[in-house]
Amino acid sequence: MSHESTIPAPVSIALTEEEIFTAHEGGKLSVGTSVPLNTLRDLSIAYTPGVAQVSRAIHQDPALVRSHTWTSRLVAVVSDGTAVLGLGDIGPRASLPVMEGKSALFKTFGGLDSIPLVLDTTDVDEIIETLVRLRSSFGAVNLEDISAPRCFELEERLIEALDCPVMHDDQHGTAVVVLAALLGAARVTGKELASLRVVISGAGAAGIACAQMLLASGIGNVVLLDSRGIVHAGRAGLSGKKAELAARTNPEGRRGGPAEALAGADVFIGVSSAKLPQETLRAMADDAIVFALSNPDPEVLPEVARAYASVVATGRSDYPNQINNVLAFPGIFRGALDAGATRITQAMKLAAAGAIAALAAEDLSADYIVPSPLDPRVAPAVAAAVAAAVVPDTAVPAGA
Amino acid sequence: MSHESTIPAPVSIALTEEEIFTAHEGGKLSVGTSVPLNTLRDLSIAYTPGVAQVSRAIHQDPALVRSHTWTSRLVAVVSDGTAVLGLGDIGPRASLPVMEGKSALFKTFGGLDSIPLVLDTTDVDEIIETLVRLRSSFGAVNLEDISAPRCFELEERLIEALDCPVMHDDQHGTAVVVLAALLGAARVTGKELASLRVVISGAGAAGIACAQMLLASGIGNVVLLDSRGIVHAGRAGLSGKKAELAARTNPEGRRGGPAEALAGADVFIGVSSAKLPQETLRAMADDAIVFALSNPDPEVLPEVARAYASVVATGRSDYPNQINNVLAFPGIFRGALDAGATRITQAMKLAAAGAIAALAAEDLSADYIVPSPLDPRVAPAVAAAVAAAVVPDTAVPAGA
Repeated sequence: MSHESTIPAPVSIALTEEEIFTAHEGGKLSVGTSVPLNTLRDLSIAYTPGVAQVSRAIHQDPALVRSHTWTSRLVAVVSDGTAVLGLGDIGPRASLPVMEGKSALFKTFGGLDSIPLVLDTTDVDEIIETLVRLRSSFGAVNLEDISAPRCFELEERLIEALDCPVMHDDQHGTAVVVLAALLGAARVTGKELASLRVVISGAGAAGIACAQMLLASGIGNVVLLDSRGIVHAGRAGLSGKKAELAARTNPEGRRGGPAEALAGADVFIGVSSAKLPQETLRAMADDAIVFALSNPDPEVLPEVARAYASVVATGRSDYPNQINNVLAFPGIFRGALDAGATRITQAMKLAAAGAIAALAAEDLSADYIVPSPLDPRVAPAVAAAVAAAVVPDTAVPAGA
Repeated sequence: MSHESTIPAPVSIALTEEEIFTAHEGGKLSVGTSVPLNTLRDLSIAYTPGVAQVSRAIHQDPALVRSHTWTSRLVAVVSDGTAVLGLGDIGPRASLPVMEGKSALFKTFGGLDSIPLVLDTTDVDEIIETLVRLRSSFGAVNLEDISAPRCFELEERLIEALDCPVMHDDQHGTAVVVLAALLGAARVTGKELASLRVVISGAGAAGIACAQMLLASGIGNVVLLDSRGIVHAGRAGLSGKKAELAARTNPEGRRGGPAEALAGADVFIGVSSAKLPQETLRAMADDAIVFALSNPDPEVLPEVARAYASVVATGRSDYPNQINNVLAFPGIFRGALDAGATRITQAMKLAAAGAIAALAAEDLSADYIVPSPLDPRVAPAVAAAVAAAVVPDTAVPAGA
């Protein structure tokens, strides 16, 4: 790969405040019904007295809830509003436009129904208790914009507490698409995935999940950076996920900051807002891969990064190689629900990443390592791969 | 009015099990989105980065949540599945088809979005706590199919706990339509509303609310019957709502059962499954009014009742004068939400009853005391009347 490949100019999407606010007027969602209610006969079927037969049947055979209510394709998009986009802790009400947008994406790309449930509590116990009480109302839970490190405990405990798919998208959606993109970038640069030296900058929800995902994919050399520098086993004050990962990452035992981490590294993955200085970029290995995913301000602008790296990706829609969660979550939930899975396992996430990468592989280039977020082939392919990766003991019984 | 008016034959609506179950396959609801997601520009407006501006604006001015999210027209249909239709305590999952049907009715007749939230707890404290935590997710709460006497405490405490419209439809929806029908029946029989002697059979959710509503409408002589007979102040063991009503009803101090209550009564309102013997019917006043609302088996069949009564109503769609809650709840919630009301007051419910009665008044007859449940004029008229009855201190500030 040549470092001299054309640096694409950003495709500007200039949005006016007026068009944004107009598009959000009245909210972005609505509930429709598939049953006609035009005649007394219609009413008698969809409501009383007819509906009583369906309720009685579900009471006698609870498995019928899957086939005769909307819950088996219904995702609750759950947030407490503590880590909304780059805005931070703006609370549940202000998070609603994001959650409505997420539900719109679930519908448009995954064909799944979805309702925002925003919570006026940030207490992990209370959030879990609330969702346990509401369990019969939905088929899956997409956790969204919940601050770290609470998000880790919340997700883990919720997976145990609920017998349905639960995923914190800011963690795993990001990690799946990052792995998919890395599969493409490795192929473009002629590097072997397992041999990559990867540096992840940011040890929040996305960074932790990316590290876990890349380790699960077989990459042996991952270094995690946070605001205090390299996360290593000898560092004082580590706890939780960072402590866990300190024991599984940084096999060379590096210490220091970004410069020490990036010297000779093949891959930089930025999921914090920390800027990446040019001199550290310069010290990376040949045919370096840079994913500067902080949004809207990448850790390094592609125009700059492409002077040193063979493949550059961002989170932005106005540059090539957009790492966008929408490539993953609609298909992951759709596949899990279609298969009747009760969990979203690491194997299902790896399958999702593989499916995304496989679609890009057909037209792979330095500026096309993942499909477009709008590519209609993606969600069905991801759903099929995820469903195929469901093992029987994570799925509800057939017919249920 | 003549007792010899034609007794209409029931219009049979024969439903096969197959067509009922086919209509419920996959559930009856879906979530749609009003924003297009066809281009990267669309994505940038409805989701990141554009949506951040809307979230930031709501964070700065919480009143914008009304205009820029779907919650101001979103009704949560909440049940714990303890009193589902005539099926009793069948639990939250089996209640879902009914709740989905209710949401379909909200949409079709009230133009309101609505989501079923069914709870795996029957503890009143826990239900309230759950809905308080979810408060930011919706604009109003329709309580549904929750057993008495828990439903009374739950509704009262929830009204205090939430700053939005809350109504237990099995109580107040029924009471509003009963009052509307009684306004029509009184006019058909040439009787004055305030002078009616009314007997209500059944002291559950509907019976209690009907008694309260009729008292609020100015009727002075209401007698409440439960399975032990007339509810009167001297009866041992009365508590809660029954004790309250014992003090406000039965001004003649009657004691005994249905026979003693109905002797000379103008109106019988049946909202329990207790059958009404013909001899007690015979003892009612001339031009009697019989509302036999138990569904699907009325307290007395219209064919029988019409031998003694001038006006007969049921809860069934296959007889004239169907007392159906769908005449009330879509318009009540629509009016309350349109006006930004934080409560549904007795004045708003009386206004709803008046609006329903006014529509029937145009073509009033013994077989037409309320409009058809399918009459598209009803919900808008009810909504307008309810909104007009909102007093400023029950509404959120203008513009909010």
